[in-house]
Amino acid sequence: MTGMPQEDPAALICELARSFYALGWATGTGGGICIRDGDRVLVAPSGVQKERLDASQMFALALDGSVIARPDDPTLRPSECSSLFLKAINIRGAGAVIHSHSLNAVMATLLYETEFSISHIEMIKGIAGMSYDDRLVVPIIDNTAHECDLADALEEAILAYPETHAVLVRRHGVYVWGAEWQRAKTHAECYDYLFHAAIEMRRLGIPTTLEGDLNDASLSARRTGALDLA
Amino acid sequence: MTGMPQEDPAALICELARSFYALGWATGTGGGICIRDGDRVLVAPSGVQKERLDASQMFALALDGSVIARPDDPTLRPSECSSLFLKAINIRGAGAVIHSHSLNAVMATLLYETEFSISHIEMIKGIAGMSYDDRLVVPIIDNTAHECDLADALEEAILAYPETHAVLVRRHGVYVWGAEWQRAKTHAECYDYLFHAAIEMRRLGIPTTLEGDLNDASLSARRTGALDLA
Amino acid sequence: MTGMPQEDPAALICELARSFYALGWATGTGGGICIRDGDRVLVAPSGVQKERLDASQMFALALDGSVIARPDDPTLRPSECSSLFLKAINIRGAGAVIHSHSLNAVMATLLYETEFSISHIEMIKGIAGMSYDDRLVVPIIDNTAHECDLADALEEAILAYPETHAVLVRRHGVYVWGAEWQRAKTHAECYDYLFHAAIEMRRLGIPTTLEGDLNDASLSARRTGALDLA
Amino acid sequence: MTGMPQEDPAALICELARSFYALGWATGTGGGICIRDGDRVLVAPSGVQKERLDASQMFALALDGSVIARPDDPTLRPSECSSLFLKAINIRGAGAVIHSHSLNAVMATLLYETEFSISHIEMIKGIAGMSYDDRLVVPIIDNTAHECDLADALEEAILAYPETHAVLVRRHGVYVWGAEWQRAKTHAECYDYLFHAAIEMRRLGIPTTLEGDLNDASLSARRTGALDLA
Repeated sequence: MTGMPQEDPAALICELARSFYALGWATGTGGGICIRDGDRVLVAPSGVQKERLDASQMFALALDGSVIARPDDPTLRPSECSSLFLKAINIRGAGAVIHSHSLNAVMATLLYETEFSISHIEMIKGIAGMSYDDRLVVPIIDNTAHECDLADALEEAILAYPETHAVLVRRHGVYVWGAEWQRAKTHAECYDYLFHAAIEMRRLGIPTTLEGDLNDASLSARRTGALDLA
Repeated sequence: MTGMPQEDPAALICELARSFYALGWATGTGGGICIRDGDRVLVAPSGVQKERLDASQMFALALDGSVIARPDDPTLRPSECSSLFLKAINIRGAGAVIHSHSLNAVMATLLYETEFSISHIEMIKGIAGMSYDDRLVVPIIDNTAHECDLADALEEAILAYPETHAVLVRRHGVYVWGAEWQRAKTHAECYDYLFHAAIEMRRLGIPTTLEGDLNDASLSARRTGALDLA
Repeated sequence: MTGMPQEDPAALICELARSFYALGWATGTGGGICIRDGDRVLVAPSGVQKERLDASQMFALALDGSVIARPDDPTLRPSECSSLFLKAINIRGAGAVIHSHSLNAVMATLLYETEFSISHIEMIKGIAGMSYDDRLVVPIIDNTAHECDLADALEEAILAYPETHAVLVRRHGVYVWGAEWQRAKTHAECYDYLFHAAIEMRRLGIPTTLEGDLNDASLSARRTGALDLA
Repeated sequence: MTGMPQEDPAALICELARSFYALGWATGTGGGICIRDGDRVLVAPSGVQKERLDASQMFALALDGSVIARPDDPTLRPSECSSLFLKAINIRGAGAVIHSHSLNAVMATLLYETEFSISHIEMIKGIAGMSYDDRLVVPIIDNTAHECDLADALEEAILAYPETHAVLVRRHGVYVWGAEWQRAKTHAECYDYLFHAAIEMRRLGIPTTLEGDLNDASLSARRTGALDLA
């Protein structure tokens, strides 16, 4: 996490957003990232194409969410994720938060009921505090019609799962954070890899934890109108 | 949709076409895009490699389809999609129309009979006028041997589904539009994501709407010679 | 196929090889391309990393396969595909030939016995002489331990299937050609898309031609030791 | 393997690491590569983002693992893979070793018990010493909580399988090597392709060797709590 030159956070948000777009995490103007810079949090505007962001378009928010600085364009509003980003920053001391619409995250929320869980995969070690043979758990909260209405459920999940660095949102995506942007990005990559691995394991009939998959949303989904398509 | 510098539409078509090629939407000279510029509609030539387009190759059409300006190369003809592009422009006031051969779109037309439908996926909110828990419907029209013969069926579908911003063409692809190019591109990305999500949900036996998948083309396909391969 | 500036064929081979590497058609030093330039055929060396080719590394062959010009590096030999490339050039008048190790091509040869076939998919129109509702057939020849030993079987398949622009090689890949490099590239992209579509259709139990899949290698494979894994 | 200009090994490690990141082999700071340069072995630091490496961050190790030269940044430590890299260098004379977390490699270790095996796929020829119809075998060792604890098991596998150029690590990834960096990269690409091919073959019920898949970890996995999801 060291050995790198200091980078301008606004330029970094643009660069990371392009990278997340290419990974399929931020298409259709979805997804996002914020970076804390001292007492300010830099966030991108809402509803813009994430791979075409420009550093001059950033908002700077205070830790209570009030707007400290804004881009010249009067039509821009701060990302709808802002209140959720601030939960991870204020409760967990996150230095950066990433929101992804990755299909891997969405599919994971359709295969697990209330918690995603996986163990004994090397990439688990990429999550701060976790070992290879720990059981990695990610809470799943239900989606709401408006993104800002997720904030309370996100806060509850963060408090109920003090070791998690991510919260999945059913049929929506995932919020991931870390102590600084490099760690948040590493976490986002590891979680996405683990969601993908779990989907492939399920497809091949392999349980994702050694105790088996007791918490399995697809079982009930299959009971209620599911087709037996491969 | 704001906060961006004005861009030359011909250069923009080339840039977007390269991006769509990389996404697999426009390989084999397939797919395309048009952008309205005042009373003119800029379209690429037919049968050229979409990732190698040059701004000097564009045609300018009037809203009735007549050619206003053409490239120097006398062998070039306007895209075969032109009459379909003009339907969305003239009936719906589209500012840009995207045609994709994405395999996600083609597979969606093989899994649904007359309408693609999905609900309760966050990316539905990326389609203008739609909420997370709305049922997103995309009409499917049957393909024809010649692309220009699709125009009447496309017009009928546009009129019959006044809320749609896309029409699927069975075993062929999809036409997607929006009020301006940014919105058309956002729509194209959201629809493609939703087609992909639906295919993965079907594969795992999860219905794509909460009422279940009543309109399921694969059921009859499986009755007529289908193999039970996974 | 027109409207483009003349390009240096050696530089073009390098550029296309980088693109094919990115598509997964030419990893592990596999795959290749040749371009005819008058009475000479330019081919890359054997066993080099295709995404790192340099125009100075090209061989020029006569139409009988003899070496007209060679790179300075004495350790380089012409591509092992050369005798196969020359079959499509001499028998069919191809201006360029592409050899791909795409996994889509390899999987297609495992799902069909002697011929790949598909109909009623729009991208079929991308193959010269084919319509949307034609049945596209690609002959499959068996692989040999040495690539040069494929030449006779390739010639037989070319002669037996006068309308094909491609020959699949079982458990190996595909050879695709066209009248000039743009057409060869378009063909390669369309065939690869169609192989991919067929695999996905099979996975979902949808026949790839309207008559059903009578010629189905996987049926016998499943009888001989296959696992019923999804 | 010839015909290329000499490249600076530190710059080459950075370039290859970016490429491996894009392939999904080195996300989440995972994966790695070392290159031998005379009596020194250049390795990247541990825990840094592999697509953002800088040549000034490299360590130089002696063949006994002692640090000869190190980057200025005092917080950096050599890659945790170093002791494993040195096994392939010292026992097999490797000139470069690649460690990948590719999901294809991980899934292969879940589908095979003690050895991955495949035969009759053209890309097998990309592995030094192998023919198309040889049975390619890759030993699988069990993962450990700490990467350095893998060294003994890796050495045993290298000695027990004198023809292999790779060792799979269950639920973790793969180590691949070659006589020089080009060969190591070619091997890594061919092995990854073969792992991917095997997974797809299994999914479609096709055995990966002509004798069938006797050594099949998924059979027992399916007996112990596996879901029958496709």
